[in-house]
Formats: sequence, C-alpha cells, structure tokens
Amino acid sequence: MSANTDGGSDTVALVEQLARRGRAAQRSLAASDTASRARGLEQAAAAIREQAPAILTSNARDMEAARASGLSPAMLDRLALDEARLTAIADAVASVARLPDPVGEEIDRREAPAGMTLVRRRIPVGLIGIIYESRPNVTADAAALCVMSGNAALLRGGSEAVHSNRALHAAFARGLADAGLPAEAVQLLPTQDRAAVGAMLQAAGLIDMIVPRGGKGLVARVQADARVPVLAHLDGLCHTYVHAAADPEMAEAIVLDAKMRRTGICGATETLLLDAAFPAAGKVLATLLDAGCELRGDARARAIDPRVGEASAEDWDTEYLDAVLSVAVVDGPEAAMAHVAAHSSGHTDAIVTADDQVAARFLAEVDSAIVMHNASTQFADGGEFGLGAEIGIATGRLHARGPVALEGLTTYKWQVLGHGEVRGGEVRG
Amino acid sequence: MSANTDGGSDTVALVEQLARRGRAAQRSLAASDTASRARGLEQAAAAIREQAPAILTSNARDMEAARASGLSPAMLDRLALDEARLTAIADAVASVARLPDPVGEEIDRREAPAGMTLVRRRIPVGLIGIIYESRPNVTADAAALCVMSGNAALLRGGSEAVHSNRALHAAFARGLADAGLPAEAVQLLPTQDRAAVGAMLQAAGLIDMIVPRGGKGLVARVQADARVPVLAHLDGLCHTYVHAAADPEMAEAIVLDAKMRRTGICGATETLLLDAAFPAAGKVLATLLDAGCELRGDARARAIDPRVGEASAEDWDTEYLDAVLSVAVVDGPEAAMAHVAAHSSGHTDAIVTADDQVAARFLAEVDSAIVMHNASTQFADGGEFGLGAEIGIATGRLHARGPVALEGLTTYKWQVLGHGEVRGGEVRG
Repeated sequence: MSANTDGGSDTVALVEQLARRGRAAQRSLAASDTASRARGLEQAAAAIREQAPAILTSNARDMEAARASGLSPAMLDRLALDEARLTAIADAVASVARLPDPVGEEIDRREAPAGMTLVRRRIPVGLIGIIYESRPNVTADAAALCVMSGNAALLRGGSEAVHSNRALHAAFARGLADAGLPAEAVQLLPTQDRAAVGAMLQAAGLIDMIVPRGGKGLVARVQADARVPVLAHLDGLCHTYVHAAADPEMAEAIVLDAKMRRTGICGATETLLLDAAFPAAGKVLATLLDAGCELRGDARARAIDPRVGEASAEDWDTEYLDAVLSVAVVDGPEAAMAHVAAHSSGHTDAIVTADDQVAARFLAEVDSAIVMHNASTQFADGGEFGLGAEIGIATGRLHARGPVALEGLTTYKWQVLGHGEVRGGEVRG
Repeated sequence: MSANTDGGSDTVALVEQLARRGRAAQRSLAASDTASRARGLEQAAAAIREQAPAILTSNARDMEAARASGLSPAMLDRLALDEARLTAIADAVASVARLPDPVGEEIDRREAPAGMTLVRRRIPVGLIGIIYESRPNVTADAAALCVMSGNAALLRGGSEAVHSNRALHAAFARGLADAGLPAEAVQLLPTQDRAAVGAMLQAAGLIDMIVPRGGKGLVARVQADARVPVLAHLDGLCHTYVHAAADPEMAEAIVLDAKMRRTGICGATETLLLDAAFPAAGKVLATLLDAGCELRGDARARAIDPRVGEASAEDWDTEYLDAVLSVAVVDGPEAAMAHVAAHSSGHTDAIVTADDQVAARFLAEVDSAIVMHNASTQFADGGEFGLGAEIGIATGRLHARGPVALEGLTTYKWQVLGHGEVRGGEVRG
C-alpha cells in the first residue's frame, strides 16, 4: 500500500511537507546543547502558564461540542482542562527540562584492532509522530520529551480536542521560539482529516517512529497499518503469581494493590495465579471480594470461595481494565510460567514469593518487558521507575521495552577516531 | 496485506509451523548458559568439518546446475565451496563461540523511588529470519550468531545454493543436538517456493526480526514488503571529505584505500569531496587515476585533472561498487556536510583533516550510522570494529545501527526486585 492510496493526495502532500519541515527543524535542534533545550522547555512551560486563559477558553469550546455530541463522562473527563490541570501540564513540561540529557552520551568506547578509537554515542531518533486521542495534555507531554531528547515531533491529536490542542501547541511553539529554538520542532497537524493519520503511518523515511497514545482501537490500527516503526503496547494483560512460599500478608497487600489501586491502567493485574500450595489463598480472595472486586475463576479457585464466578476461556485473555479479576490455581512455578507464556501480553508479570531461587527463575524465564518480584504490577510506569516521565510503555521486542522515556527516544552512531589508518591488503591497481 | 494474500496458504501454514517450532526451541535455548551455547557452536563447527565430503558433494550439484543455467562467473564464485572455504566457515562458527556473551548482561541498575531495585538485563530478541542469496556460508555464519545470542534462526537461502545449504544446515543442526541443544533452534525452510519469503515477511508476532543478506534487489523487496522489523542497509553510498587541513600523504593513502582496496563492498567510498582549499588535490586524483579508477567530477574537479570525466546528476546518488568515483570540489566543511546530507545513504562517511575542531563538528553533525575521522571507510565492518563477526550493517535509525553483532541480536527486559512494595494511594473499595 503506498501513501497515495490511503487518503487524499493533498493530505499526503501536507503530511510530507510538515515532515520535511520537522526534519529540518530537528537538524537544528540536534545541534543545540542541553541548556538550550532545557531553556526551550522552561519557556514553553511559561508560555502555557501565561496563555492559560486562551487555552481554557479553547478547551471550553471543545467541551461544549463534546457535550453536544454526547461524549461519555469518562471521555469528557479526559478532555477537560482547568487551572489546576493546566498548571500540572506546565509543571510536567518544566520537569522534563531537569531530566538528565541522553543526547551525546557515550555508550561505550573501544579500540579497533587496526588502532582507531570507536565511540558509540547517543543521538536523537529524528522525527517522532505522535497520534493521540482526547487528552490534550499529550500535546505538551510528548512535545517536551521529544524536544528534550533532540527530536522533532509531529502531533496528531483527536478531533474532540482540536481547539485545546491548537492553543496548547501555540503556547509551546511560542516558548521554543522565545528560547531561540526552531518552533517547527513541534508541529500540530492542522487538519482533522482522518487520511492524515494514514499518511503519517505510511511516511517511512520521513517519520522515524510513531507513538500512538490512546485506546486499544487506535493502537491496533496504528500497529496494523504502519510502515513506520511503532513504539507501543496493545494490551496490558498482567499476571501476579502468588507462589507457595509467599508471605501471606505481603501477597494480600500486593494483589489488592495490583488489581484495585487503579483498575483502568495498563499495569493493573488482570489474572491472579494462586499456587495450590499457597496456604492463605482464601484470605487473598476474600480481601479482593470485600474490596468490591468480581472474581472469575477455574474450578479450583471456585472451590476456595463460593463467591468466585466461573471463568470462560476468553477470560484468561481479557484485559478487564475494571474491578474484575481472573483467578487460576496452578501447581507450582512451572505451571504458573506456562500460563503466563500462553496468556501474557508481555507487558508486566509479577511473582510474590519468599523463595529467592524461584523468584530468580521467574525473572529470568518470563519473557515480558517488565518482570517483578514482590512488588505490585501497578508500578509499571516511567515515573515510578525514576525515568522522570514516559512517552509510553512498549511491548515490542526491538529498540526500547517497558517504560520509554528520553533514552528510548535516542539511537546511536559510531564515531571512529583514526590516525590515518587504512585497511590495506587488497588495494587494486 | 495479510499473510494469506501473499502466497499459497500451504506455504503460509508451513512458515507459521516452522516459526512456532523455532520459538519453542528458542525458549529452551534462552534458558541455556553461555558454555552450553559455546559448546553447541564448537560441535557445529566439528560437524561441518566431519561432513565436509557430503557438503562439497552437495555444493558440486549446485555448481553443476548453476553452470548449466548460465550463472555469471561472479555468482558462481559466491556459490563455490572448497576445502579451504569450508574450513574457514567452520573456523568462523567456532570463533563466534569465543565471543563475549551478551545474554543476561546487566545494562544498568537503579533504585525506584518506592524502593525496588530496577535492573535492565539483555535477553535474546527471539526468532530471527535470515533471507539470503547465493552464498552458502551465510547458513553457518548467521546461525552461529543467532545461537550464541540465544536466538532461534529461520533460514531461507537462495535456490542456487539449495543443496549446499541443506548439507551445511544438517551438519549445524547435528552439532547443536550433539551438544544437547534443540536442533530446531536453527531451521532451514524446506521449500524454494518464493511465496515462503512473502510469508516470512508478513509473519509479525511469529518472527521478531528479519535480516536480509544479499544484493540491493533482495534488500529493497524485504524493506518494501516486510511487516516484521528489518535490520539492513540498502546502499553504502559512502563519502570521504578531504578538508583543507588534511595531511596530503594521509589523504592520498586514505582515499586510495577507501575507494580501491575492494570496490565491491558497502564500505567503499563512492564520492570524494575535495575542499577547494586542500592544496594537494591534483596528487590525490592522479593517484586514483594511476590506480585504474575512473573519476567523474564536477567542473572544478575536471579543472584539476583533464582525465576526470563529467559527472551527471545521478552520479552523486550512485553506489558504483566498482573502480569509479564521483568527485566534487566543495567550499569548506559546511558545503561538504550539506553534500553528505543530500546524498549519503547514512552508512559511513569520513573526514580527513588535521583540524580536530572541524573533525569534531563533522563527527557530531553528519547523521550516518558510522562517521570517521582520518580513517578509511573500508573499515566499516564488524570484524574490523572488534565485534568478532557481524550479522549485517544497519542504516535504520532504531534498535541497532552500523555493524550489528551479538549485542544487536539482543533486547532487554526490566527486572524489578521488590520487598513487598505497593503503589497505594488510590486503592478502591
């Protein structure tokens, strides 16, 4: 499928034009130093604060249209901005300016057999496409991470948030310009034409990476259609395995947090694996039920507590994002890991045990982006990992996995420092 | 485009079946230790040596068919095996066994704000598809790199080399089995049906990465059609820029080597950029001409030596892979870097200069996988970089760039070592 078949050729041409502009701005950004980029973000944060009235007015327009079109309360909440949320957005932008800058960092250094010094050094990826839905904060969050890591961003927000995004983008670009950085390092697609998304997904060679931010439908479409590499996770089907040797109180606390702290996030546990030899299974299930969690279990789980409902075959592959949990009783770590291998989405899987050898095997053999021992899967988050912020969580196998922050927005080059070395041996002529 | 539209459904089913087997074997390989994998490669090398007569007989069948079908002498040479070449193949497999093992290596370690220890650790990518043409040595080379890094390989060689590849593969698999490793960690597609290539390229989720090894036609097809991430370079359009402050003798030696040592490799320089202020341009061009190199230049290059022919617009974008060189005269580093930005394939670009500041700018600003100072571009090679061997050279921006060896065949996971931490704060219920 070529870019031209997926949308109006005007839209394709527009995306190409914006991408070329973004690439040009990125070259200038890549040549800037850490302090300049940090100043750019501080100015962007300042501009967002200064332009708060205009941004909130724009958001009110979006909210009005959204209410008129009957958007769900959850969607309206995602879209809504107020003084406090806007301050949080500006603070987040400013906080990215204080993160350690990966650009230019030396990854390693070695001597080549022929004598040259070889240095691998981090460089920005290039132009990052961000495709997102109703949350206007993504406009500023994603732009800040891209700019700090020397990347240009091409943003495509949801149509519900069009005025909010434009106002936020205008403030951000103004801040960059105030700091002497190219405003076109962050561009917002001026059209809501859906063909523009297709054009972005097809723009291999012009856009270096796409990060979708939104629901499963968006991510699935992006993964299915993109010719550009995608950094994303489709599902967060996370498991917590309570081993026979788990401390009962710890297991209870971790499982309750992993499922119920926030049920709608990708790091929420969706399946509990209870070792048949774990003595306090009844207590753990009772705690979940008392907290208002619906349990759907296999026959052995139902035998533990009659309030456990019956799990269907699909339940083991369902990301509930709700106060619902699948529960299976397993015979030992081998069976637990087999269940995880069969059903995990590769996002985050955890074991609770006091047996360090069993834990080490689980951490080594479970093939997910994040594997945890004695901790809640709800920690699967760039901020909680101390990365400062995250552009997303990736479950692909290449480039970057798990929470992706500034470093994941860089690649590297080899710098070869010679003294006149020639390879020799076979010169023709 | 789904996998089913790109070939016979039998072929698609076959590729899926082999991929699933390979993935199962990879899980067992990933659980093996360094010494086991090294022993596997040593046994594979031994089996190749032991089965030399059978391998050479199979190669003779391929050579006979190739001669009958009128293959070019260059193609026949790529296909041909003899005792010496086979020994070199076995030695190369054994040498991979002695490389440092990246699997399990700790990339970094940090404390999470909530108290857990976070360790990023290298793991194999998974199942690697290798699609190659007439060189049977790729069967053993690629398999060795994949196995040593804990990956399974699914090999699809060229039809000219079918018997040679089968014999080499049989020996390799026997060696793995002798060492107690799963023979199915390395599988050779049993069909020469071209639809199998399409099925491999579409097998996202089953094959984790594709490495094409062969000519530009193959790489272009793979890059155009693949839904699976591809590690490759299409062109090696490498530049050498001789700055005003270059040492004349060094410049002469480097340029001669960079172009003429071996003209057919991807690291060969294809365009020479001569600074207008470099005083010994005439000497450099005369040395190239005397060595039998055809020169195609702009008007200023032609004014230096009348033997320089006229370059057409396409010459600046042509990878000759022959004793032909484009020559442009440029006014300073800015102009040189602009030419490189416009025409480089992002593989390898070099500067020759005694001015370290100019060199530093070139190394920072030229956006290629490999940038060199005072060295021949012909060093662009995993062996010359001290990596021991290479699966290929990549010019993409994500995952791995430049020469890719064992480390580029790994990804990482996050291991979270907790003490019962829960995220808390928002538990429902």
